Amino acid sequence: MSTLPNLTLHTDKYQINMMYAHWKNGTHHKRAVFESFFRKLPFGNGYAVFAGLQRLIDYINDLKFDEQAIRYLSTQEENYDQGFLDELRAFRFQGSIYSMEEGTVVFANEPLVRVEGTIFETQLVETALLNFINYQTLIATKASRIKNVSPQDTFLEFGTRRAQEADAAVWGARASYIAGFDATSNVLAGMVFGIPAKGTHAHSWVQAHETEEEAFERYADALPDQVTLLVDTYHTLKSGVPNAIKTAKRMEERGKRMNAIRLDSGDLAYLSVKARQMLDEAGLDYVKIVASNDLDENTILNLKAQGARINTWGVGTQLITAADQPSLGGVYKLVAIENSEGELVPTIKISGNPEKVSTPGWKDVYRILGSDTGKAIADYIVLHDETDVQEGRKIKLFDPVHPYIYKYVDEYEAIPLLKPVFVDGEQIYEAPSLDHIREHHRRQMDMFWPEYLRKLNPEKYAVDLSTRTWEMKMSMIEKMNR
Amino acid sequence: MSTLPNLTLHTDKYQINMMYAHWKNGTHHKRAVFESFFRKLPFGNGYAVFAGLQRLIDYINDLKFDEQAIRYLSTQEENYDQGFLDELRAFRFQGSIYSMEEGTVVFANEPLVRVEGTIFETQLVETALLNFINYQTLIATKASRIKNVSPQDTFLEFGTRRAQEADAAVWGARASYIAGFDATSNVLAGMVFGIPAKGTHAHSWVQAHETEEEAFERYADALPDQVTLLVDTYHTLKSGVPNAIKTAKRMEERGKRMNAIRLDSGDLAYLSVKARQMLDEAGLDYVKIVASNDLDENTILNLKAQGARINTWGVGTQLITAADQPSLGGVYKLVAIENSEGELVPTIKISGNPEKVSTPGWKDVYRILGSDTGKAIADYIVLHDETDVQEGRKIKLFDPVHPYIYKYVDEYEAIPLLKPVFVDGEQIYEAPSLDHIREHHRRQMDMFWPEYLRKLNPEKYAVDLSTRTWEMKMSMIEKMNR
Repeated sequence: MSTLPNLTLHTDKYQINMMYAHWKNGTHHKRAVFESFFRKLPFGNGYAVFAGLQRLIDYINDLKFDEQAIRYLSTQEENYDQGFLDELRAFRFQGSIYSMEEGTVVFANEPLVRVEGTIFETQLVETALLNFINYQTLIATKASRIKNVSPQDTFLEFGTRRAQEADAAVWGARASYIAGFDATSNVLAGMVFGIPAKGTHAHSWVQAHETEEEAFERYADALPDQVTLLVDTYHTLKSGVPNAIKTAKRMEERGKRMNAIRLDSGDLAYLSVKARQMLDEAGLDYVKIVASNDLDENTILNLKAQGARINTWGVGTQLITAADQPSLGGVYKLVAIENSEGELVPTIKISGNPEKVSTPGWKDVYRILGSDTGKAIADYIVLHDETDVQEGRKIKLFDPVHPYIYKYVDEYEAIPLLKPVFVDGEQIYEAPSLDHIREHHRRQMDMFWPEYLRKLNPEKYAVDLSTRTWEMKMSMIEKMNR
Repeated sequence: MSTLPNLTLHTDKYQINMMYAHWKNGTHHKRAVFESFFRKLPFGNGYAVFAGLQRLIDYINDLKFDEQAIRYLSTQEENYDQGFLDELRAFRFQGSIYSMEEGTVVFANEPLVRVEGTIFETQLVETALLNFINYQTLIATKASRIKNVSPQDTFLEFGTRRAQEADAAVWGARASYIAGFDATSNVLAGMVFGIPAKGTHAHSWVQAHETEEEAFERYADALPDQVTLLVDTYHTLKSGVPNAIKTAKRMEERGKRMNAIRLDSGDLAYLSVKARQMLDEAGLDYVKIVASNDLDENTILNLKAQGARINTWGVGTQLITAADQPSLGGVYKLVAIENSEGELVPTIKISGNPEKVSTPGWKDVYRILGSDTGKAIADYIVLHDETDVQEGRKIKLFDPVHPYIYKYVDEYEAIPLLKPVFVDGEQIYEAPSLDHIREHHRRQMDMFWPEYLRKLNPEKYAVDLSTRTWEMKMSMIEKMNR
């Protein structure tokens, strides 16, 4: 098996067991609403970048218990009834999904995806949804942090060999591109998504020739328009850079220009300054310097501060694994369920941990932009039947942790963030091209004052509950306590 | 695209560019030998557990540039010649691969996989090989650390929702199982690999019913032989455990036994002691206690030390992402290349960083077991044409970092660790079943004294170079310096 089969069974066993228990009890057609969100921004960042929706759409469209899956489930120790297996065989996703668009700047404790449908189908999709959204949002966020250290530079995603398996490499390359990376080394991601795929040669290219000079010459002969030479196989300043300069001069004689040299070890600040000087003195000011070697937003910022003469950054391990926090704790919580009278009623999960108490009810999210500045003031969460914000009426913004701190806003634009993607099983969302998503992300970043976007100690952006949402939550907690 | 297409393009662009440059220069049929190894054990552990070979075998067997791949490459800015694309179209892997077996206990700086063939094919496979081996070996190692905190307990892999995308979830479940985990929550991994898939219900099951008691009853009715009840939706000790006890007693009336209760939040040490006491007082000493909630080897060890009454551990995020070190820095280095006279000659990569200087030459690895104890003394790396160790002659073991520290060994058994997997493109290795791999791993662990296996401050196990390997490395470094 070199690639995975259909992903319908890419779910936790407990989903199948709950589906079975609902089916067995005749409750599997109960309507339910789940919302997915995370509780804490990763990396101490002030925002996250939503990604994973395309993957979710593809997954939902391909959901189907094929005969291999049915046969497998029929062998399980749970001894599922034949009727249940027939139900699975006939299963198609008929629910509705509302989601943030990819590239959207998002925050903790706001619904990113809302899934409505029978408890049967809404339960099934939880695990894969979280698996996709958690990873891709994490990597897009990490990529955004790195890119924004120096937005005018070029950033290359180089992480495949250290990625956590193939899907992470390919979907991680896509998430990075959404958040502003310019290219990937992964050719499959290039083919599948149309991301520019970039790369030159490895140390083994140099080792495979008698001399470094010969290796550089031969590479330049073969790919004269794509020459980036790796200069650290033997000695960067004594051998690599001088040999690269020789090759660049010979290329000039043939009317060609070398693209760049690449530094992959040693003190990148020192080496880049020296190499820049050597290149400039040889009249090669057009030859760029690419650097790689376990880089992340902090090393890049420090190298810039030290005056490193690098304009293209190859970022691998730290990005593709989000090494400083390799998981986003996105969850998927039941917010409403059909009761025995056939009404959809809000539901809550209580916890000893106050921030783990869920916010009940079926909700929408609006981004509130000040009419004067066009900049975002707060994200505002409302119950799905509240209309004040849609109608532009005055709203009260208050902090759900400190509700006595509030203000009223009435001159604003309210942008609904959750878009319909599937309605009653049918995909109605036309997925934008990847370049549109990337552009959407860039425009999203422009909506925020820089203090929310800075890498270190960002200002906390407000995610507020409407008064009705807040009051319902409070009254349900009170009811539970009684 | 809900699953990836053929993985042939799951490689770095520079591999394709080097293949092209070799083809263009007529050097693409040069013979080459690469070895893959890592330089540092992860997590401060004393050993690693090799995994990823099955994945590599499947990948090699499916390697083929299909028309979609060829078409894509023909559009790239490199403007590859038509002849190169024809070469790719006709390409099949004809090289040889020698590898550690999955489940083998392995160490830093020893070849885990050796790939021999043309430079064209050996270069192509680097990226995917590292991507698979790095991740799966990392997770198997993490799982082994966790399992060995309490080998008699049951360990469940629960990480899918936090895994870095689908492949990581599925292949990570397999790696965990190899290293001693007992089951996974991922149903797809269950189907594809035959790993036991386990799971019960979520908080949403409880929330979907009017009361917790009703939820428990209904679950027990539906799946009477698989009842593990999650007891922390509202209040573990006041509501969850008492309701679970009621259900267990009613099950007894129907001749059934509840399997377990599951704690998923709060103070697991305190709650498990209290819950155990409540269960025991109700005559339910057979009901087990499962715990989950961001567990790893350290939290489990601490819970055991505090007297927690837990015998089954659900481990998620920390395992499946290897959160404390989410990448293994495995590399793939050229160790021999055909020269212009058609001879295969050793090659070296020099670095300012002493531990990054590669060990030249085409090598084998033997595990040396003392004849008296049957326990491992050292791993011993030899050039492929050295025969002393095969013939059981006296060998000199010395530390390559401190070569003046040495000893001679002559009463030993030498086990060759690299097994032929592909020879001239043909798979000759019969991949063992997953349960055989698991058993192989268990036997491997028995070969080592416990001081090498302990979690904290393990003794360093020796990985030694033969005298000839060492002398060749030294003479090549000297030649390079001149």
